[in-house]
Amino acid sequence: MNTFVVKSSAMVQQKEISLPPFSRGFHLITRYIEQELPELPEQGMLNILIKHTSAGLTLNENADPSVREDFESFFSRMVPENQSYFIHTMEGADDMPAHIKSSLFGASLNIPITGGGLNLGTWQGIYLCEFRNHGGRRRLVLTVYS
Amino acid sequence: MNTFVVKSSAMVQQKEISLPPFSRGFHLITRYIEQELPELPEQGMLNILIKHTSAGLTLNENADPSVREDFESFFSRMVPENQSYFIHTMEGADDMPAHIKSSLFGASLNIPITGGGLNLGTWQGIYLCEFRNHGGRRRLVLTVYS
Amino acid sequence: MNTFVVKSSAMVQQKEISLPPFSRGFHLITRYIEQELPELPEQGMLNILIKHTSAGLTLNENADPSVREDFESFFSRMVPENQSYFIHTMEGADDMPAHIKSSLFGASLNIPITGGGLNLGTWQGIYLCEFRNHGGRRRLVLTVYS
Repeated sequence: MNTFVVKSSAMVQQKEISLPPFSRGFHLITRYIEQELPELPEQGMLNILIKHTSAGLTLNENADPSVREDFESFFSRMVPENQSYFIHTMEGADDMPAHIKSSLFGASLNIPITGGGLNLGTWQGIYLCEFRNHGGRRRLVLTVYS
Repeated sequence: MNTFVVKSSAMVQQKEISLPPFSRGFHLITRYIEQELPELPEQGMLNILIKHTSAGLTLNENADPSVREDFESFFSRMVPENQSYFIHTMEGADDMPAHIKSSLFGASLNIPITGGGLNLGTWQGIYLCEFRNHGGRRRLVLTVYS
Repeated sequence: MNTFVVKSSAMVQQKEISLPPFSRGFHLITRYIEQELPELPEQGMLNILIKHTSAGLTLNENADPSVREDFESFFSRMVPENQSYFIHTMEGADDMPAHIKSSLFGASLNIPITGGGLNLGTWQGIYLCEFRNHGGRRRLVLTVYS
């Protein structure tokens, strides 16, 4: 596919889902997302929005779980709890760092669709980034447009 | 909406706007953006691009203003001014940190549209992230596709 | 363009490309991307995905190369190599920091298309963020929808 392939079509498909609760940390959810998708078009885009301000979504390494452990270690140090200057502290020590990390990672992903599947790199997977100690079920909006 | 809802349509709507000048810090602009939007489709996406390299956009907590104060406190420490190794210093001490923060937050947002409105979480609002001391009016491109 | 301009159309155009190898650091690739694009629509969006987990894409200052040097200086300090708690270390000291930076910057960009061109700010350019010492050729998916 090194020249542009042109597809004529016009469809928006949309759905909201809830993930099961995940522990604080980074979790590979590619298969979970794929199971929720409809039959995908030949060409298009998938947008995923997480409807929360203390969690995030990102693409990263899908093979070695130690990457996800190192993410948690690094970001817990980079955005430490209990900073003396924090004033938004009523919801717990993990809350304000969770808001900060949510904006560092971002709340949505855009993934191209090609040949009826997600067109990710070999090593790319979709991470749920759970920044709260007890975040509970997280809601996602999936939008496929083509 | 736990199964996919399919809508046939094909429209791109686009507009450029200028925000009023904001002080350095994080500002909730959800209502401002909503006022600028056309009648929204049943299903689609909104993209917002900020056409600047020393400001950003993000989704975060829309209720308690102290979150936005803590954002400013945290990121001013995380990306300090006057680092001895900075060489891009001619536009002032706040300039290079502003470029760095702009890329950490990102210059654009994608928000799903559902039922004629922005489909954000209950606590999600749109932040303008103003990283310059005197950033002036910032220009945004709003694109609605459905 | 301060009222919404509406265009009826429905087309997805898509292509994969490989960039030439770049050295570790931040590189302006706007012209390279523009050369690869088809004739662009009057209104639409461009999505660019980098299919890798140790590189990223961002929009930032397109004029003064010292901004890109300061990016490399800052982020090499912010995400240092050889942290004692890293466990994903088998692929070299630059690998785990590269994964972290990839998620901080993000793997994709969305750029509005207006009047047959990319609608970026005057000072905005597209950066390839190469986080590995020897990253080699990076693959991108370009998707134009209108």
